[in-house]
Amino acid sequence: MKFSIYKEALNEAIQQVSKAVPSKTSIPILSGIKMDVNGAGLSLMASDTDISIQSFVPATVDGETIVRMERPGSVVVPAKFFVDIVRKLPENEVHVDVSELFLISIQSGPIDIQLAGLDPEEFPQLPLLGEDRKFTIQSAVLKEMIQLVSFAVSTSEAAPVLTGVNWTLEDQVLKFAATDRHRLACVERAIDCPEELRFHNVVVPGKNLNELNKILPDQSELIDIVIADNQALFRAGNVLFYSRLLEGTYPDISKIIPGTYKAETIFDTIRLEAAIDRAYLLSREEKTNIVRLTMTDNDREVEISSSSSELGRVTERLSAESISGEPMKISFNSKYMLDVLKVVEDEKIFIGFTGTMSPMVLRPAGDEGALYLILPYRTLN
Amino acid sequence: MKFSIYKEALNEAIQQVSKAVPSKTSIPILSGIKMDVNGAGLSLMASDTDISIQSFVPATVDGETIVRMERPGSVVVPAKFFVDIVRKLPENEVHVDVSELFLISIQSGPIDIQLAGLDPEEFPQLPLLGEDRKFTIQSAVLKEMIQLVSFAVSTSEAAPVLTGVNWTLEDQVLKFAATDRHRLACVERAIDCPEELRFHNVVVPGKNLNELNKILPDQSELIDIVIADNQALFRAGNVLFYSRLLEGTYPDISKIIPGTYKAETIFDTIRLEAAIDRAYLLSREEKTNIVRLTMTDNDREVEISSSSSELGRVTERLSAESISGEPMKISFNSKYMLDVLKVVEDEKIFIGFTGTMSPMVLRPAGDEGALYLILPYRTLN
Repeated sequence: MKFSIYKEALNEAIQQVSKAVPSKTSIPILSGIKMDVNGAGLSLMASDTDISIQSFVPATVDGETIVRMERPGSVVVPAKFFVDIVRKLPENEVHVDVSELFLISIQSGPIDIQLAGLDPEEFPQLPLLGEDRKFTIQSAVLKEMIQLVSFAVSTSEAAPVLTGVNWTLEDQVLKFAATDRHRLACVERAIDCPEELRFHNVVVPGKNLNELNKILPDQSELIDIVIADNQALFRAGNVLFYSRLLEGTYPDISKIIPGTYKAETIFDTIRLEAAIDRAYLLSREEKTNIVRLTMTDNDREVEISSSSSELGRVTERLSAESISGEPMKISFNSKYMLDVLKVVEDEKIFIGFTGTMSPMVLRPAGDEGALYLILPYRTLN
Repeated sequence: MKFSIYKEALNEAIQQVSKAVPSKTSIPILSGIKMDVNGAGLSLMASDTDISIQSFVPATVDGETIVRMERPGSVVVPAKFFVDIVRKLPENEVHVDVSELFLISIQSGPIDIQLAGLDPEEFPQLPLLGEDRKFTIQSAVLKEMIQLVSFAVSTSEAAPVLTGVNWTLEDQVLKFAATDRHRLACVERAIDCPEELRFHNVVVPGKNLNELNKILPDQSELIDIVIADNQALFRAGNVLFYSRLLEGTYPDISKIIPGTYKAETIFDTIRLEAAIDRAYLLSREEKTNIVRLTMTDNDREVEISSSSSELGRVTERLSAESISGEPMKISFNSKYMLDVLKVVEDEKIFIGFTGTMSPMVLRPAGDEGALYLILPYRTLN
């Protein structure tokens, strides 16, 4: 294979696929990036078997030649050094020439690089997916949905299915849910897809969604999504992102979402976050993160407090926008509430209480589609 | 003790002294910050026994009251939580009230904090230093001198004195030297001090100088320096920074600095740094960081190369500004050269060669006061 390419185009594609290169692997070929060049352009691919990313650089863009192919072919180039050196090349033209023994020569301005490549035949093939469950979503909507729930997945491998986000599609509404058994995050958004398209129990690993989020464009570009039996494919422009799906049955969360509340409050999101954060500072020293919210005699005021047996106590009065129902006193993991308040962009947040020992429900006041549930700590006083 | 203070003033002083709070300590009192308030203002102090920092907030600044003392006194407040919470207080007025049992009440707007303080009598006293070796230096000059040499101190405790920077003052010239036996950095600057003031073998721990550097102002403010037997004191405005001095005799480096060269070159600093950095990328994979510089037949060009038995080879041609003397071929630790090139701000850098197996000398072309020495690798080819 032999081709020339603009450094910036090569670098952008490398940065995209490099997110799939495993930092450690027992399979040497996976520590490389597969390059394929032909008349259509250059394609790069990396895989850690959990996710695979392919990025394609077309030969021409708007009539300008980006990749000039002289001899088609493939090779696997060692990723670690390649990723860094291409980013630091001083000139814009990069010439790549690969011998039959996979010796890679890279030349750019005054720089000559010789690299020992690997046989591309050894590199894993991208899965071929049946496209019967296929739909399209705006990149910004997908990014928002990921951000609103992915923090709540479990980090414990004890129940692997809980390390993923559960996707459900029904009646043209896409739903994401994540839980680690102590808290739950879910969001739903109407999407434009065939009415008859539906699926459930499609569980995408949370960490893969976070990686996907990094390469999704911010703009309202459309993302194609294909859901197959054990893989999901996301296509964003010239980038293909494959994620393994998790096996197992995701728990039914619909039963645990309360329908009525004993008390309802609305807070300014930023002021609540700041107050919880201050109480968290002390409670994290106890490693429990326990913060208590107490409704006071003053109608519109709550007290947020935490204490550490060793250090002391912090108490703060916070005015709510509104409070109704029974007076409540509830202790909870402040880290869980901060996680929610950090991703919610609404100015106001609703908190519904179902009892001192029962779940709290948080909702962005202006977004009926998002819902968070936090279990309280069971404390004696 | 009882006083009120502006949050910003308290926070600034806390951030300064907190750099001396040890992250781990077997002496509980040291995990705190000592506060002293009296009619003159508030003083904060922290110490890890290696460095101690004191910051003073005067009662009034330009006629404005910053600290309003109601009852003088002292207490030691637990640093970890205190540092974070003060930074995150929402209002500007902070009221502090300490009981006789060292129970600290902090009140700011809607927030009440109770902290268990410690007895200030247990906190180590600041050393009393004889001021016979005292001089003054511009903050910017001291910062530059620290930056130009401190990276070259040894990180090995095998020879503790080499983990410090050796200070010498003679004939109104202050000299800093640092070496880890593989490379040497030294810088000298003329300063304004009494002609008869002189000292040598004053060795300040490199990491303490880096901490000092963080709190030194960038401006041309004057810093008072007192050198005592086993302590140095730096006074920058309202901040006092005490550093322990290292015991032992610093090696005499004057003998190893070559007076003549077999070859002399001048490079553009930024272009040389970029070329060495590219060769370093490959050589670091070998963990040796070995890069070779070879003078070519072309008068003004050198070749910079590195190789990895596993990955391959990178070769780059670089034009020098000037080359004279014998043709040279030398292998060296590229990390050592990058460390120098990163701190040198001169556009041009001089490199003098004394032989393939002998030290290289680097000097910023426009700064006779700074000098670096790098020992070559002894390789066979």
